[in-house]
Amino acid sequence: MTMDQLIDSLRDHPRNEAELVKLGHLARKVPTHDMAYLMKTLPTDQAAIVYRVLDKDTALAVFESLSPATQAELIAELRHGEIFEIFNELDPDDRASLFDELPAKVADRLMSGLDLEQRTMTTTVLGYPEDAIGRYMSPEVLWLHPEWTVRRAIDHVKAHIDEPETIYLLPVLDDSRILLGVTGLRRLLSSDDDMTVREIMREAESAHATDPREETARRFLGGKLLAMPIVDAEHRLLGVLTYDDAVEIINEEDAEDAARSGGAEPLEKSYLSSSIMRIVQSRVVWLVMLALSAALTVKVLDLFEDKLSTVVILALFIPLLTGTGGNTGNQAATTVTRALAVGEVRIRDLPKVIWRELRVGFVLGLILGSLAFVITGFIYGFTFGTVIGLTLLAVCVQAAVVGGMMPIIAKKVGADPAVFSNPFISTFCDATGLLIYFGIASVILGI
Amino acid sequence: MTMDQLIDSLRDHPRNEAELVKLGHLARKVPTHDMAYLMKTLPTDQAAIVYRVLDKDTALAVFESLSPATQAELIAELRHGEIFEIFNELDPDDRASLFDELPAKVADRLMSGLDLEQRTMTTTVLGYPEDAIGRYMSPEVLWLHPEWTVRRAIDHVKAHIDEPETIYLLPVLDDSRILLGVTGLRRLLSSDDDMTVREIMREAESAHATDPREETARRFLGGKLLAMPIVDAEHRLLGVLTYDDAVEIINEEDAEDAARSGGAEPLEKSYLSSSIMRIVQSRVVWLVMLALSAALTVKVLDLFEDKLSTVVILALFIPLLTGTGGNTGNQAATTVTRALAVGEVRIRDLPKVIWRELRVGFVLGLILGSLAFVITGFIYGFTFGTVIGLTLLAVCVQAAVVGGMMPIIAKKVGADPAVFSNPFISTFCDATGLLIYFGIASVILGI
Repeated sequence: MTMDQLIDSLRDHPRNEAELVKLGHLARKVPTHDMAYLMKTLPTDQAAIVYRVLDKDTALAVFESLSPATQAELIAELRHGEIFEIFNELDPDDRASLFDELPAKVADRLMSGLDLEQRTMTTTVLGYPEDAIGRYMSPEVLWLHPEWTVRRAIDHVKAHIDEPETIYLLPVLDDSRILLGVTGLRRLLSSDDDMTVREIMREAESAHATDPREETARRFLGGKLLAMPIVDAEHRLLGVLTYDDAVEIINEEDAEDAARSGGAEPLEKSYLSSSIMRIVQSRVVWLVMLALSAALTVKVLDLFEDKLSTVVILALFIPLLTGTGGNTGNQAATTVTRALAVGEVRIRDLPKVIWRELRVGFVLGLILGSLAFVITGFIYGFTFGTVIGLTLLAVCVQAAVVGGMMPIIAKKVGADPAVFSNPFISTFCDATGLLIYFGIASVILGI
Repeated sequence: MTMDQLIDSLRDHPRNEAELVKLGHLARKVPTHDMAYLMKTLPTDQAAIVYRVLDKDTALAVFESLSPATQAELIAELRHGEIFEIFNELDPDDRASLFDELPAKVADRLMSGLDLEQRTMTTTVLGYPEDAIGRYMSPEVLWLHPEWTVRRAIDHVKAHIDEPETIYLLPVLDDSRILLGVTGLRRLLSSDDDMTVREIMREAESAHATDPREETARRFLGGKLLAMPIVDAEHRLLGVLTYDDAVEIINEEDAEDAARSGGAEPLEKSYLSSSIMRIVQSRVVWLVMLALSAALTVKVLDLFEDKLSTVVILALFIPLLTGTGGNTGNQAATTVTRALAVGEVRIRDLPKVIWRELRVGFVLGLILGSLAFVITGFIYGFTFGTVIGLTLLAVCVQAAVVGGMMPIIAKKVGADPAVFSNPFISTFCDATGLLIYFGIASVILGI
């Protein structure tokens, strides 16, 4: 496999011209997506060597596919001329993301090297906060005038074809840059030459530059758009969002949700290129917080210590019961978090979700409870079987409801729904589950 | 809000012409993405009423945004003429997905109503398994001949502009349909009229129709492509994959991963439109399986019953210790599952992952263990503090390693990495954690 040969050649620390030429030949045979994987997993100094032997187009494509944090690390290994070339070639929105990750001095020097137009566009994009969609738009837009004929419009597109990020969506603007509608190259080419742009344009699905990025990107992808005009409060055109930006936003948001659902913060770089301490950092705060909340379970059990010493058998079922509660809660939380993220559930649906989870939890509890009643009953006697069966029923109901509610409540108070992650819900259900368990045991066993 | 008014009007069961016209007016004011949300959450009979009052283009756009299962339900409520109109308008790949969900009789009748060309294309797509990329391609492709001039190519595109799903990627084929390269409309329009297509075409990033869908879609989106040619084993063109198909595949795969990471199967329809029994069904198998594996913890504790009755205090820490093990395992599993899904980790990286998680788990265990040693020591004495501290250290190391390994091993044996979900890892870590706990307690406390 070429990729392995490439990795082997790198181990020999190629330095002289002949070795680098050989490396270049190998690198050209590696498909772009394997190359992107390599750049994310190799140590940065080796990544820089590979980067240098790539042809210019591949190099830029691979660079654009890296996260801004990885881009910044790679840049630290390159020479000033090489860095400037990259910086100059990037679209203004990608440049803005990288800008944030660079040391201020490097960033300023790179910015001052841009021509006025590119610098202005980059500054415009940098003016929006990181979670606003304006930060991801491309301000380089090819637009049409409503009174132009189709013929003139096509000529205009041809004359400026290399400038903008996309020519497949063409906004139509009046003299004060107000967005009137959009049309596409396909529509232009299939229309009569003498029609006006106004006659063939359609209504635009647009977003405000200050709109939240995740919601806008989901709307974009849900509508299967190729590009979307971004406007200001007066509906004046500011830029265009292209599909690759929407995909990247959703990718980042999904990575964040996935990490949080597992009780960790997302890593800024890829897993294999992050340092051990970075990974520890992404997990330790959550883990300590969860362990401290789990101290609650010690406290709860402490309350029932006398009951435990009377009926030691009660202790045997603790992990089973708390575990099942946690699992049921996780199932509900995961389903609802995902449904919220993709817009299938909204905050207004909270009562509906509670009512659904109440019924789902009840049915699940009935099934598990009956099963446990029979099995435990045969082994430990049916009085004890009743305790375990009833506890499972109650635990399933409360865990499903809590798991279903939490993400919506988080969203309502403005937090990330994924913050009420699986581990958090497990821990919560552990403590409440124990209270339910000993409550039921006290009544039935009369202890 | 117009959407609420619309929902209210639906509650009054509009039947006569005037009421439906009023409903139509309301519906036209609801943005398309809100309409899609409505169609996914309304009861099917109400969704069908709304569907009928939409104008044709919106109706088709909304229909296309529904999952095949929801589409099939909606279709059951519509009249034959309406159904046929939809079926005829869909792209062959979307038609194939819907086809699977329909009763065989309905599906056959609809297919026989198509013209020969559409029927042939749909049958071609249906020939590929559901997890192959060929199933999602559009066989309606506009292609160019390498010897044509740019002028002739542009005329050809203009003449056939309404037929294919995309005109932004134009494959170049020789006489036996072998894919030689691709070009785009942008390149065509910016090239000299007398150049040949061969001169301006570039190498194509393509996929085989039998390639796995998730991997291909990730490669597609990673490369920021607009469309990708799909070929057979002889490199003959079969169709084109467009970006919306790639987005949809990833969306489904991510939903599946999210559900499984929470220990449930993905729902076929949206959460709010799924029946209670469907939701129960998606969770109960996992839950019962997990509960049965958790029976292992009862067994383990049973082994140590005498130790538990000697030192009841040991029982108090069970949920804390098993919980922390589960959390650490989940963190590692979530990170690695995601990294595998997006291609940042591959199967070959297993030894690297184990070595990383060993160190991460050790550092996390040191931090948590020291903390627990101090706190527990002050309350329960430092001998007992040593038991808890050492157990946490050992539990963190083993949970991190197990959590990191499991998804890779799953992928290696051909299973979905997300199958070793959070609940599964929690349950596994519960049992092993207890063994570690009582092992350490026996040695240190001499019981």
